[in-house]
This record gives sequence, C-alpha cells and structure tokens, in this order.
Amino acid sequence: MSNKVSVLVAGSWGTALASVLADNGKQVLLWSRNEQQVLEINEKHTNSRFLQDVELSPHIVATSSLQEAIEDADAILLVVPSSGMREVASRIRPFLKKETLLIHATKGFETGTLKRMTEVLADELPEMDPKRFVVLSGPSHAEEVIRQCPTTVVVAAQDLEAAEAAQDLLINSYFRVYTNPDVAGVEVGGALKNIIALGAGLTDGLGFGDNAKAALMTRGLAEIARLGTAMGANPLTFAGLAGIGDLIVTCTSKHSRNWRAGNKLGQGLPLDEVLAEMGMVVEGVKTTKAAYELSRSFQVTMPITDELYQVMFSGKSPNLAAQDLMGRVRTHEIEEVASGSSANWMG
Amino acid sequence: MSNKVSVLVAGSWGTALASVLADNGKQVLLWSRNEQQVLEINEKHTNSRFLQDVELSPHIVATSSLQEAIEDADAILLVVPSSGMREVASRIRPFLKKETLLIHATKGFETGTLKRMTEVLADELPEMDPKRFVVLSGPSHAEEVIRQCPTTVVVAAQDLEAAEAAQDLLINSYFRVYTNPDVAGVEVGGALKNIIALGAGLTDGLGFGDNAKAALMTRGLAEIARLGTAMGANPLTFAGLAGIGDLIVTCTSKHSRNWRAGNKLGQGLPLDEVLAEMGMVVEGVKTTKAAYELSRSFQVTMPITDELYQVMFSGKSPNLAAQDLMGRVRTHEIEEVASGSSANWMG
Repeated sequence: MSNKVSVLVAGSWGTALASVLADNGKQVLLWSRNEQQVLEINEKHTNSRFLQDVELSPHIVATSSLQEAIEDADAILLVVPSSGMREVASRIRPFLKKETLLIHATKGFETGTLKRMTEVLADELPEMDPKRFVVLSGPSHAEEVIRQCPTTVVVAAQDLEAAEAAQDLLINSYFRVYTNPDVAGVEVGGALKNIIALGAGLTDGLGFGDNAKAALMTRGLAEIARLGTAMGANPLTFAGLAGIGDLIVTCTSKHSRNWRAGNKLGQGLPLDEVLAEMGMVVEGVKTTKAAYELSRSFQVTMPITDELYQVMFSGKSPNLAAQDLMGRVRTHEIEEVASGSSANWMG
Repeated sequence: MSNKVSVLVAGSWGTALASVLADNGKQVLLWSRNEQQVLEINEKHTNSRFLQDVELSPHIVATSSLQEAIEDADAILLVVPSSGMREVASRIRPFLKKETLLIHATKGFETGTLKRMTEVLADELPEMDPKRFVVLSGPSHAEEVIRQCPTTVVVAAQDLEAAEAAQDLLINSYFRVYTNPDVAGVEVGGALKNIIALGAGLTDGLGFGDNAKAALMTRGLAEIARLGTAMGANPLTFAGLAGIGDLIVTCTSKHSRNWRAGNKLGQGLPLDEVLAEMGMVVEGVKTTKAAYELSRSFQVTMPITDELYQVMFSGKSPNLAAQDLMGRVRTHEIEEVASGSSANWMG
C-alpha cells in the first residue's frame, strides 16, 4: 500500500484529488510553485483561488519543493495543463524512483506533436515502465468531489496491477473507481469531450434549445468514438464513464470553461476576444485544432470538429456552421453511427 | 406523396407533430375526443391545456370524428399514451385502408402483456402489413419543436420504403429525420429512458450532484442496451438519437414528468402521493414495472431498474437504494459495459 502521495499542481482538480487521498488516510503533499498558495494551504487550510468556501483537510500539506514532493512519494498524481506536462515530467525526472506509481488526470493532447499524455510521459521518463502509467478520468466536477458528492471515475493502465494500485489509493464510499485497460480510449475520450462541450456552448449561445444540444452530443460522441477507435481505443470505452459520462457532465454544466467559451462564440464573439475575456486555459480550443489534424491523418470524418475549427480559426459565422451541420440530405442512422461515412449531427 | 395526414391525439407531442406537418404543406386533421378542445383549435388556433402561449397554424384542423380522421388519410400518426394504444387501434380498424401509412410516437410497453407498441398494433390490425408500421422517436421536447427549434428524430420500420415515406412527410429545415431499420431498438430505447429519467430525478432529489447523475445516465444506458439487445435490438441504436440522445434530453430537463416524479421520490414522498400530486400519466412508473419483469424473463442484470422498483413498489428508502447501488466492490469497467455481469452505476 502506498502511503505517501504527492499531487502536482494545486489547481481545483488537483486539490480535490488531494482531498480524496487525505480522506483515505494518506500522507498528502500538494505541490505548487506559488509560495503564497503554499502558505495559505498550510496555515489557513484553504485554496481560495481555485475552490471558494472550501475548508481543506489539515492532513494536506503543501510544498513548493519539487524534490521534497517527488523523492519520498510512493505515488504521484500529475494534474497539470496538457501544455505543461512535458516540462513537469522532465523536471521531476531527477528525483523519481522507478517503482513510484505515476497517475495523471490531464485531459488533452500535446500541441504540435498531437501526443497523448502517457506518450509524453514515456518520452520524458525513459527509466519508467510506460505500461505502469495510469490515467484517471470520468465525470467529476472538482467542486462536487471536494464536498464528497458521489462520484465515479475510471483509472486505466496497460498493467492491471498499476491500475488496481491507483484504485486502492483513491476508492472510498463517495469516490468510486473503476479500472479499464484501455489507456488510449480513456485519454482520447477525456480530451475530445471538450470539443463537444464547446459545440454545446455554441448551440446554446445560438439559442437552439435542448433538442439540438442532445443531437449534438449524440453525434459528437459518435465522432469521438470514430477517431478514438482509429487511434487504437476500444469502442466500448466511449460508452463508459470516460466517454459518455464525462461528455454529459461537461456539456450540461455551465461551470465548464469549454461550454462557456463556446457559448460566447455562439453569441458572435471572435475567439481572441473570448479567450481574453475568460483569462484562463480553455483546453477545448487547442484540442479542436489537434483533433482537426488527427482526423486528417487518420482519415476519419469529424463534421462537428471541422465546423468548430472553421468558426474558431477561419472566422466562419456560428450560424452558417450550424446550418452546414444541418443541411445534409436525409440519411440512415445506423450506417452513420457505425461508419461515419456521411455523419453530421443534424441531418 | 401523402398529403392528407391525421394525428391522434391532440396532446403536446401530437400537436407539435401536427405543426411540423402543417409547415410542410400537408392537410392536417388533429383528432380529439374533447369537443371543447376541437373548438378551441379550430377557432382560436390554440391548444392551451397542452401548449401555452403557442399559436397554431390555421392549416391544422381539429375533429372529434374518428371516421373523418381515418378514412381519407394517406398517413396517420398515433401519439397516444401506451395504455391507450390497443383501444385506439381497435377503434380505427373499421375505417383504415390497407395502404395507409401508420406511424406511432408512443414511448412505453403495454402493461401486462409487456408488448412493444408495434406489436400491439399488429395484434389489433391484422389486415395491415406490420413491416410497414413506423415508430418515431428521439430527443424532442414538443415545446421546442413547435417553436421550430432545430430537432432531430429517428423513424424506424422493417420496410425501408415505409420509413422513407414517414421521413418525406416530416423532414424540413428545422426537423431532421433519420431512418433506422431497428424497430425494436427504437421502441425499447424510447420506453426505457423514462426509467433512467426517474432515477436522475431521484439522485437530484437526494442532492447528489452532476457527477452522480452523469454516472447514473452512463450506467443506465448500459442497462437499457443490455435489455434491448436481449430483446432483438441492434446495440448501435442505443448509441444514437433514440438511445443516448433521448436519454440526455429527458434526464437533463426539469420539464420531464419522469424526472419530476423521480425528484419527488428522492425527496422522500411515497409513489401514490407523487402520482396524486402530478395528476398526469408518468410513463416511467409503468415502464419500471415492465422492465423489471422483462429483465427477469430475458435474464438481464438491471441494477438501476431493480432499485427504482424497490423504491416505488416495496417502500425501500431512496437513500438506501442509492447506497446499495454504490456499495459494490471494485470492478473493471469494460467487462461490465459489455456483459453487465456485475453492473451497477456507481461501484
């Protein structure tokens, strides 16, 4: 049993996972570059920038020393933006022991390389066995987890023992953890659902209603599954928590950054203004670009991704994009779900 | 091309579908037993009991004569509660021509016989070719359709030509209609999603949050697909509009009767008080009973249906039911999605 667990970094999801670990009696070190945040967590037991009105367990100790966080840890949870994964991995490498369990909970691809997060880890940590890298995903608002609302997630690793070790660390009465051997599927599902959340925000921004949003989510799941399967995932993963489950929670929550960004796009704001207004990372924007490129290299039809790409990067009007999604001639549903040959979400 | 189309009865969904047909230039007869409603529709062009603040097309004509509605119609849409389908079918039989296209949009099984609606139609209309019976389903709030919000639905028939005739009748720029040959899947999906909507209302009533609801919907879809597949449906149908699409729109809308009934159950009200308070048909209650029986005769595991059955019909407390759904030992996700051997929605 692992007892010393470190979490990087102290954002909302990292802090919520640290809280689950503290509830499970683990010794938790939460790493942050920000000295003030470290002080606040250790003295006031709050992390007010990311989780308002929440009191943290006194068993969560924060540190700004990467060496301290890594060298004694039995397990490490990496919860960093996808753009920071490579740097963080290379920085922890000198302190990392071979037997340490490495779990990440990051949803996105690396820009440029289009690699999944466990592929980035494998690049940067050649001493580690990549079969033991674990990814954690599923429908899990941090704000609910930290309040101990019932939540289910999936942990995936090629090595079942590693996935089960992660499960043992995290499982408790309100946080249910399933294992899944399909690392690619869990990573792809978690990344691509952010595109559909952008699209859901966009249709809501256009005032289309719940019927249209449900159609978008249905067609969106189909196109996620098509790309994921082409990338080596098990299609069943997309019917599970890291697929449809996460898609539902992200698309139907107004707390989702991706939904909010899409909503502003739907109201007619151009992308640069949307991002300036939001003032934080919107994973789905980069993921749309990545998926657009991946769909071409894997020759998979992704009409929603294509239209969102046009809206964000080529100045296409959201209304015209929606019309183009609706404008196809009649089709037969099952062929389309199965093959995607002429798939679009509304016609 | 069919030009004269009759719709039975003038509830909210029937009236919305009549409105689509009127927008498509069809001559629409809307049948109701209620003389006052007939008068209101013909004189004021409103149907205020079912659709508030909506002005109907003057091309929708209401009638209380069943003979008038049936004998000249090229196509008939049956939009009646599942409990009334057999009686309505037997009453229209004397006036019905063999070549008339029969489409139904009813979501549920017949109590007692556990038959699907096209099976009830086949029983009562032996002169008709059952391969040509069409079912219409999908994520479609009537209130949005009548306001021409973009909506997608599925029409299924064993005979593709019949499904395409229904598609031709109904398709337009805001109402997209897909065909699907899987009649059983479309009927089962439409019926069973009401159970999961009850469950979603129940977890919301218990104050569980969005993570739990997304997990319930994910597990719920898996158990719907398991029963449906055992009953002869194509599993892909459940990944489409009549499966996940309809599930999403029903579970995330506070307008859904089934969600509202479940919500009251979650707050601790017993079933008889819930139904008395609602004062209208809640299809999901009867469907839970039907699915409970079907799961036994088809030997399919349906943990959510089982727990809801216990809450509604055996006085089990919603909290205990939720605990029992969560209380399982750790499991592996994909096996479970695929086989359902130890499936439950949270553990």
